[in-house]
Amino acid sequence: MTGTEKKTGVPISWFPVPDESELPESLQGLFAKARENLGFVPNVFRAYSFRPERLSAWFSHFKILHEPTENLSVAEREMVAVAVSMENGCLYCLVAHGAALREALGDPILADRITLDYRRAGLDERRTAILDLAVKVTNEPLECSPEDIEKLKGFGLTLEEVWDVIEIASMYNFTNRMSLACGKIPNEEYHALAR
Amino acid sequence: MTGTEKKTGVPISWFPVPDESELPESLQGLFAKARENLGFVPNVFRAYSFRPERLSAWFSHFKILHEPTENLSVAEREMVAVAVSMENGCLYCLVAHGAALREALGDPILADRITLDYRRAGLDERRTAILDLAVKVTNEPLECSPEDIEKLKGFGLTLEEVWDVIEIASMYNFTNRMSLACGKIPNEEYHALAR
Amino acid sequence: MTGTEKKTGVPISWFPVPDESELPESLQGLFAKARENLGFVPNVFRAYSFRPERLSAWFSHFKILHEPTENLSVAEREMVAVAVSMENGCLYCLVAHGAALREALGDPILADRITLDYRRAGLDERRTAILDLAVKVTNEPLECSPEDIEKLKGFGLTLEEVWDVIEIASMYNFTNRMSLACGKIPNEEYHALAR
Amino acid sequence: MTGTEKKTGVPISWFPVPDESELPESLQGLFAKARENLGFVPNVFRAYSFRPERLSAWFSHFKILHEPTENLSVAEREMVAVAVSMENGCLYCLVAHGAALREALGDPILADRITLDYRRAGLDERRTAILDLAVKVTNEPLECSPEDIEKLKGFGLTLEEVWDVIEIASMYNFTNRMSLACGKIPNEEYHALAR
Amino acid sequence: MTGTEKKTGVPISWFPVPDESELPESLQGLFAKARENLGFVPNVFRAYSFRPERLSAWFSHFKILHEPTENLSVAEREMVAVAVSMENGCLYCLVAHGAALREALGDPILADRITLDYRRAGLDERRTAILDLAVKVTNEPLECSPEDIEKLKGFGLTLEEVWDVIEIASMYNFTNRMSLACGKIPNEEYHALAR
Amino acid sequence: MTGTEKKTGVPISWFPVPDESELPESLQGLFAKARENLGFVPNVFRAYSFRPERLSAWFSHFKILHEPTENLSVAEREMVAVAVSMENGCLYCLVAHGAALREALGDPILADRITLDYRRAGLDERRTAILDLAVKVTNEPLECSPEDIEKLKGFGLTLEEVWDVIEIASMYNFTNRMSLACGKIPNEEYHALAR
Repeated sequence: MTGTEKKTGVPISWFPVPDESELPESLQGLFAKARENLGFVPNVFRAYSFRPERLSAWFSHFKILHEPTENLSVAEREMVAVAVSMENGCLYCLVAHGAALREALGDPILADRITLDYRRAGLDERRTAILDLAVKVTNEPLECSPEDIEKLKGFGLTLEEVWDVIEIASMYNFTNRMSLACGKIPNEEYHALAR
Repeated sequence: MTGTEKKTGVPISWFPVPDESELPESLQGLFAKARENLGFVPNVFRAYSFRPERLSAWFSHFKILHEPTENLSVAEREMVAVAVSMENGCLYCLVAHGAALREALGDPILADRITLDYRRAGLDERRTAILDLAVKVTNEPLECSPEDIEKLKGFGLTLEEVWDVIEIASMYNFTNRMSLACGKIPNEEYHALAR
Repeated sequence: MTGTEKKTGVPISWFPVPDESELPESLQGLFAKARENLGFVPNVFRAYSFRPERLSAWFSHFKILHEPTENLSVAEREMVAVAVSMENGCLYCLVAHGAALREALGDPILADRITLDYRRAGLDERRTAILDLAVKVTNEPLECSPEDIEKLKGFGLTLEEVWDVIEIASMYNFTNRMSLACGKIPNEEYHALAR
Repeated sequence: MTGTEKKTGVPISWFPVPDESELPESLQGLFAKARENLGFVPNVFRAYSFRPERLSAWFSHFKILHEPTENLSVAEREMVAVAVSMENGCLYCLVAHGAALREALGDPILADRITLDYRRAGLDERRTAILDLAVKVTNEPLECSPEDIEKLKGFGLTLEEVWDVIEIASMYNFTNRMSLACGKIPNEEYHALAR
Repeated sequence: MTGTEKKTGVPISWFPVPDESELPESLQGLFAKARENLGFVPNVFRAYSFRPERLSAWFSHFKILHEPTENLSVAEREMVAVAVSMENGCLYCLVAHGAALREALGDPILADRITLDYRRAGLDERRTAILDLAVKVTNEPLECSPEDIEKLKGFGLTLEEVWDVIEIASMYNFTNRMSLACGKIPNEEYHALAR
Repeated sequence: MTGTEKKTGVPISWFPVPDESELPESLQGLFAKARENLGFVPNVFRAYSFRPERLSAWFSHFKILHEPTENLSVAEREMVAVAVSMENGCLYCLVAHGAALREALGDPILADRITLDYRRAGLDERRTAILDLAVKVTNEPLECSPEDIEKLKGFGLTLEEVWDVIEIASMYNFTNRMSLACGKIPNEEYHALAR
């Protein structure tokens, strides 16, 4: 039952999904916290808990990439997430981070537009340049060059923040593939969130 | 000086490279251990130490993916690494993990062949199927399906090991992009290693 | 004012948008009917009315493709629309026909899943085969063959309905390109529709 | 017999081709007019007449796109047709509109060159820019931007004519896919026409 | 004058074209022979004569690939030439070898169809399999395998003839690139040849 | 035995490999010379000798492309070879010409870097521009234009040397496909050469 969506009855992963009670305490804590903050446990946690040690290790890395800095906000980090996920066509991340972007922006229409096509979403040059680099890292990483770094610095990002754009984009190239190849299905709750 | 190769004088990253002495103790320990085992500190550590917290988090995840299991050896995990890196054309990972594969196999010719074209390296059906999935996860993750999982199970891998193939392949889609977009250059020492 | 979205102030087209009152009577009738049925005039009508004769001609063709038949329902025709639009990354059609699919299915979660990745939406073999052909017509039309037609007939579609799958898929390859290259932006109202 | 070429005996469509006498009067008129002007009925009409209502609707839209204007001649509209059809590799449209371009230009050599590679056909900057946009609309519509519109305006096209370039290019992305996926074969007569 | 087409005045190469009288005797002989057989000197000879030694060396290799054998006729070798050239979009080779195929088949309609889309030209399984391999060698040579060789042997080709399919396909990947990157333009005479 | 590698026992070709003693004298001479210079007969010779006349004709053309000129050295011609071979993923040429580049440069590290990613190998603008054109000829020959020729002239190459870049790049598009589609495997000796 753990591994199946309530309403639709669709399995949330092509791999077995362990019962929450069998998981290490630290993960039970993570799940509890998610339930508190979000109202439910993201399916990516439940699906990834087939390999509990991996989930812990990955999430420790993943979560710090979304911490905001002066010139790269929570919303802008989610924009990188959805722009990359749209290039890869990742159902899970488009739904879950589409919802997160709606929440972060407080503007569901703008968030949906960025998720589906940031180029036509009316973004300013700075945000467009950030997402252009995320897409370049995704689709033609061989073509990346020091000029790409300079370009974002020209829009006021620190070197650390340019690195973040690259690292977040690279991370979603990891999570998109994990979700697609493991058949992870996003929680039903995401679809109505922050609308 | 930290960030430049000794002989070639080429910078090892397009981002600043901090001096080892400025790094947190845990990373200094990691570097020392690498120096002990390998004879040098991999440039990926030095380049990534521009963001020390990130290096720690990433490496904690990364390293456990290379732990061998009964049906997926150290060498086979390196094969996934190089097959993905060849698809993405990642200089750093082809050189560093090409060397690791030579070491793991104790056969530099076979290792080089697998690194450059696993399809013509004379591998058996089982290893070919493993690398075919790694490449599918890399190039057409949308096309992945439960049948891919079944196929590898048919070659004797446990479900956990099939997951590993997917997770390692996804991980190198992360590290390849990080290396390519940050301009990370592999240590000169790798080229002659295990020949 | 006609050519700009109310809330976001974003222009709905990169071409001029005429005032509704200047349009031929037949188009004013079309707009009135849309306002009655939908509550608003779709931006594709307003943007396309820069060339009123063209809008009339195109819409006369377009609308008959969405008429349901015994084995190809209104919802299934919308599924073809969104599957093609996702391949092409068309913001306008993903938003507008994503909404239409939610309405047609009465199931916003299933509709969103199909819109973003029909392969992981839990569809049966018949619907998957229909959408596979739509995607083949979109991405590799040269590879289409009589076997594709036979395959859909094997799932109970009439020859006329197989033709419809092809014609709808081809049509969205027209409308996607029109929307993308003319910079058409979907109405804000679509985002909350049928949720 | 209706649906098979005279000399080669090749079927002109993978779908059934109705006898002309069974078609609605308006289509019989269309066929008669084609026979009068061209000497034969284009196979696209005969193949499309499997769905008579569709043929009427499509052709009403299609034909107005080829009406010349001051800065976009009959020949230039055919150039857009063949440039798009070459990108998609559409046998039917390359043969039929290759012939139409020979006729429109009165220069079979130039017409053939444009059909096969407009980039090396010796065209001036204006025509090259028109065909570059047609190809961009075909192959990377997501990358289209307001600058593309400005560029063609800079070569003297009106906004309506820039729209036409986009709409004709989009239309051939429709007809190419219909022809390829329905297996439409061009009339034998086209090959020798206007040579 | 040597390097410019008579009627159209278009240069036949982006590189200088030497006067025939300056060429080595052996090439003057080659040109004379072509003039005798074909009525004109192919522009590929004139353009390539910028590097006379290269022209001699290349042509010595090229010409033997078109010598017919029992199960791979002159026409079938030209089919490989045009199928590859269509994949690469090579104006020169499509025009010149399209004419050669018309001549070899004595059937301009069938020849044109094969040139533009061999898949819909009504070819039998054997010829289709030959051209499928030529296209695979062109577009995805990494995916070639011993099974491809076995497949053509199953259609009655000797191992030498299978090799020929591969070598001719590879050769046109050479000549297509030479023609495209040197701006070689086919002789005006080809267009009307063998119609 | 002729057609199998000593240590690994892997066949060097998917086609039969004749015994050296059966070959025409001129080829026996070529083999003897290779053995003298290199210490072994390259497998490409042995594999290609299945068609002795072809081997002679091809090699007569191939070898003159590697003759150095004032502004395009032996090493730079090998750089074109490996850059193209990396785009095509050709095991044979990457191993054999990777070794030749190590030898020509006398710098195994730089040679390996250029072989795997010339963009990050620290090359100067002139060499980068040469390899950029080689890759353009390989991947998007249709986009080549007279400007590409001018660009290399601006770096001091003669027109003949620009032609050479194009002809060598085109040649490796031939040899890469021959090696990949015939299953040619590089000699074991290459891997340790010039390290």
